[in-house]
Amino acid sequence: MPRKIILYIACSLDGYIATQNDDISFLQCVEKEGEDYGYTKFTETVDTLILGRKTYQKVIEMGYNYHPDKEVYVLSQTKNEAPFYNGDLLELVQKLKNKEGKNIYCDGGSQLIKALLGLGQIDEIIVSIIPVMLGAGIRLFAERSEELNNLELLGCTPFETGLVQLHYAIKNKQ
Amino acid sequence: MPRKIILYIACSLDGYIATQNDDISFLQCVEKEGEDYGYTKFTETVDTLILGRKTYQKVIEMGYNYHPDKEVYVLSQTKNEAPFYNGDLLELVQKLKNKEGKNIYCDGGSQLIKALLGLGQIDEIIVSIIPVMLGAGIRLFAERSEELNNLELLGCTPFETGLVQLHYAIKNKQ
Repeated sequence: MPRKIILYIACSLDGYIATQNDDISFLQCVEKEGEDYGYTKFTETVDTLILGRKTYQKVIEMGYNYHPDKEVYVLSQTKNEAPFYNGDLLELVQKLKNKEGKNIYCDGGSQLIKALLGLGQIDEIIVSIIPVMLGAGIRLFAERSEELNNLELLGCTPFETGLVQLHYAIKNKQ
Repeated sequence: MPRKIILYIACSLDGYIATQNDDISFLQCVEKEGEDYGYTKFTETVDTLILGRKTYQKVIEMGYNYHPDKEVYVLSQTKNEAPFYNGDLLELVQKLKNKEGKNIYCDGGSQLIKALLGLGQIDEIIVSIIPVMLGAGIRLFAERSEELNNLELLGCTPFETGLVQLHYAIKNKQ
């Protein structure tokens, strides 16, 4: 089994991952003790993460130690010292996919998702739809020029809090 | 029970109801004989429809007779002869909600949805997520200035074709 790149992310019903000011406090409405919506189980299936610089910075600012047990690549325009990477994205993901290992977790944000979709390199999408509408903000799926009509629904799980987790595979990539 | 306005609509995973050219052929990927995704059952619970002029025109151009057995209001900037209505939207929906009857089906499009959400007049949302990404097009939820954090998940139904139907109530409207 080749390693897969899996986008695991949450968005509002109207498709935003954060407000325009990078505020993600809307996620709090589904916080529930003892319920992690499969996150721990998911992270056990991955050993590598790729994410955008802004997303990384946001997590660090929130005081988290970003997955110290895993290989982390933070895509950056400028910095190139680990965990930052400012080289060619396709080269990186092809290198990672050709290595042995668990799956690769794409943690966003919007620009990296767009770039990876454009390269046909996202293999699965696990999106948790939070029962709120932000009205405006940073879109999970930024505008792109190509259609993707090869999604296969792998799962659909509703939770008591109103969160719905959708799981798709992207087949026969362009 | 007061009459409810229910938005019943389909969109791509990336939140579009049509391409920029009003093309809705992406819906064909979930067409399946004998499967109407609850549409007939839903239409039996409504006796009135409100929709935007462009959406109406699109349906008419496709050769359909638009719900001849129901009361239809097509919101227009200009025309006012039935089924068109160019008066005040809030006045119309309040008049309709104060009448006896079955529920009211909002059939889109994007502008009418935005206006009704802004007026706090959509009571339920039934959205069928089609397993495709259009990349760009007409968004189900156009940008708005207000958040809506009072959605209650009423149902979540996956279908064999990969379509997922989500059903929300909007509680305690603004």
